[in-house]
Amino acid sequence: MPSPIRPMSEASKVLVFGAGNFGSCLADHLGDSDHDVYLWSRQGEVVESLNKTHRNPIYLKDHHFSTNITAVGPELPGETLINEMDVLLFAIPTQFLRENLEKLRLYLNKDKHPLLIFVNKGIEIGTHALTLEIIADTCGAGIAKAATFISGPSFAKESKICVVQRQPTSVSVTSFTDSEAQRAAILFHQPHFRCYTGSDPIGTELAGALKNVYAIAAGAADGLGFENNTRAMIITRGLAEMTRIGTAYGADPLTFLGLAGVGDLFMSCSSPTSRNYSVGFRLGKGESLDSIINNLGSVAEGVTTAKGVKMILDELCIKARIATTIYEVLYEGKDIQTAVRELLELPSSKEIDLPSATGGPAKQLMKKLGLD
Amino acid sequence: MPSPIRPMSEASKVLVFGAGNFGSCLADHLGDSDHDVYLWSRQGEVVESLNKTHRNPIYLKDHHFSTNITAVGPELPGETLINEMDVLLFAIPTQFLRENLEKLRLYLNKDKHPLLIFVNKGIEIGTHALTLEIIADTCGAGIAKAATFISGPSFAKESKICVVQRQPTSVSVTSFTDSEAQRAAILFHQPHFRCYTGSDPIGTELAGALKNVYAIAAGAADGLGFENNTRAMIITRGLAEMTRIGTAYGADPLTFLGLAGVGDLFMSCSSPTSRNYSVGFRLGKGESLDSIINNLGSVAEGVTTAKGVKMILDELCIKARIATTIYEVLYEGKDIQTAVRELLELPSSKEIDLPSATGGPAKQLMKKLGLD
Repeated sequence: MPSPIRPMSEASKVLVFGAGNFGSCLADHLGDSDHDVYLWSRQGEVVESLNKTHRNPIYLKDHHFSTNITAVGPELPGETLINEMDVLLFAIPTQFLRENLEKLRLYLNKDKHPLLIFVNKGIEIGTHALTLEIIADTCGAGIAKAATFISGPSFAKESKICVVQRQPTSVSVTSFTDSEAQRAAILFHQPHFRCYTGSDPIGTELAGALKNVYAIAAGAADGLGFENNTRAMIITRGLAEMTRIGTAYGADPLTFLGLAGVGDLFMSCSSPTSRNYSVGFRLGKGESLDSIINNLGSVAEGVTTAKGVKMILDELCIKARIATTIYEVLYEGKDIQTAVRELLELPSSKEIDLPSATGGPAKQLMKKLGLD
Repeated sequence: MPSPIRPMSEASKVLVFGAGNFGSCLADHLGDSDHDVYLWSRQGEVVESLNKTHRNPIYLKDHHFSTNITAVGPELPGETLINEMDVLLFAIPTQFLRENLEKLRLYLNKDKHPLLIFVNKGIEIGTHALTLEIIADTCGAGIAKAATFISGPSFAKESKICVVQRQPTSVSVTSFTDSEAQRAAILFHQPHFRCYTGSDPIGTELAGALKNVYAIAAGAADGLGFENNTRAMIITRGLAEMTRIGTAYGADPLTFLGLAGVGDLFMSCSSPTSRNYSVGFRLGKGESLDSIINNLGSVAEGVTTAKGVKMILDELCIKARIATTIYEVLYEGKDIQTAVRELLELPSSKEIDLPSATGGPAKQLMKKLGLD
């Protein structure tokens, strides 16, 4: 039952960076809502194909994209185009964000800049920085404070098809600046693409990164032959761990109860086509990580995040047994059957066990943003 | 990969009231853990079959039950047996609990009584009382304060099979009395049946009742042809509503983040064989409630709970749009397609919106229990 489409907000000029699965899907949604969309791809053939045939030759291949999309690239757009925009939407993997923001910041006026929306997830390798910190480092505290983050259960691989087919979905839109979160929500909101606002971007970012580790665990459980009860257990106990890590970091525990938390976690743990779930499933079937990575061609995000999470756990002195187990299986060669047995042999414990002394990393980040 | 079984606690004498799906499954688990289990059924043929062949002719028919189970009945057990017990486990539907407790209270010594565990869910029709209140009304505040509640994602219909097959699952064990929650957790805990303790039985009870309403919504969405994104949305937005209702009632919002909250909600919304989901699915396909109830032979719990929830919402002056919509479809003849369109046309809003003045009903109940 696809819903009728109609403009919910004034038509805006939106430049989307990144024509991958994320970027293409969101560009299409915005074009479908009658916004004037520019979609940057660093691949010449994608630009040409989108402009000539309204098809993306790599992602969502079967979809005829909105004619309101103009593809640009392969060079990064320059000052003229950026200054015409109302909104810049970043759908670039976290690991490439810093280098692109370094270039783009030259064109951003600190006092009057477009609405900046970020949909990437994950922690930067090496620095373990959240996107908020990458933005602050490259563009300054003012722009980071106004940055808006979109997250939620619409971002698993098969969900992109749901979005372009106008199947009802919903996302969380968060920012330290309420008015910016509301602007972004109004831009995207449609009957079939529902936006809910929040004010805890740190929690939203952490949830988006952490959930990939638990998607590996859910895949592994399925690979080992466990059933639906066990998946519900991994989702719920994983959520308790995510909330504990988030609270220790300084996020609001209730963020994990929302679309960016449990919503996205549920989708990621129930998506057999997702990369993280696949890695877990194959580990569960007894394949080695090296062989899986060779076969996948690249590292799934949860594999990298597991390492970052381990460092955060050590630093904050908190326990998260499922995440630690995934780290040990991935990086310390622990046998997955042994790992599961050890997890199951843990004694009964308190269900929701949040740390009392909390918030170190978030406090540092807030200070960097001038929000302390 | 079923786990090895072994006693985790001293063998206890447990009397399980109710040999339905719930009771039989838990009795088997306890027998499997080498406890000495008595299982009461009000049906003579069930008692006879369990004692002669270790089979329940009605529930989990294919399962060979633990030989540590002695079935008793069809008369309600009397003082002698009850006084021998360490634990009484109630797996009786909420609507029949009051009448049974009225009879049993005569045998319970207020100063030295067995551990009382309740696994029923739902709100009592007419009074809208939670089980805690039914216990207080019949057995007194002291026994209600010590009562323990088990809830979690192991209770959907197909999960029973997982439990008796020793598939890993997990539950939340809550009580106002920590030591009693811990006793119950130790009694049940096994590598494949993991117990996590909590101290918010009101939240646990509310979550267990409310989730059935959202299972109807999830079924309806599937019946209408929506896909996984939409289910994730109903689970997450339903959870936000449940948390709002629970908080207004006086429960801890974090309870909804646990096994009794999101864990059970996830299972109930993903169980096509569950009664509540089926009602929703058939409503979504256009069938009338009367026809569905005629066909099912009885009313699914969520159908009754939707009415109780509507009264709670009106009394507490809070909004829960999905629950209200289910009420309108069930009891006011609202067309389901219209209802969905109206829900989808709601504007963007704040994601987690908890009421500020909270806790009236819980405060009254706590007063009744002498916990104010």
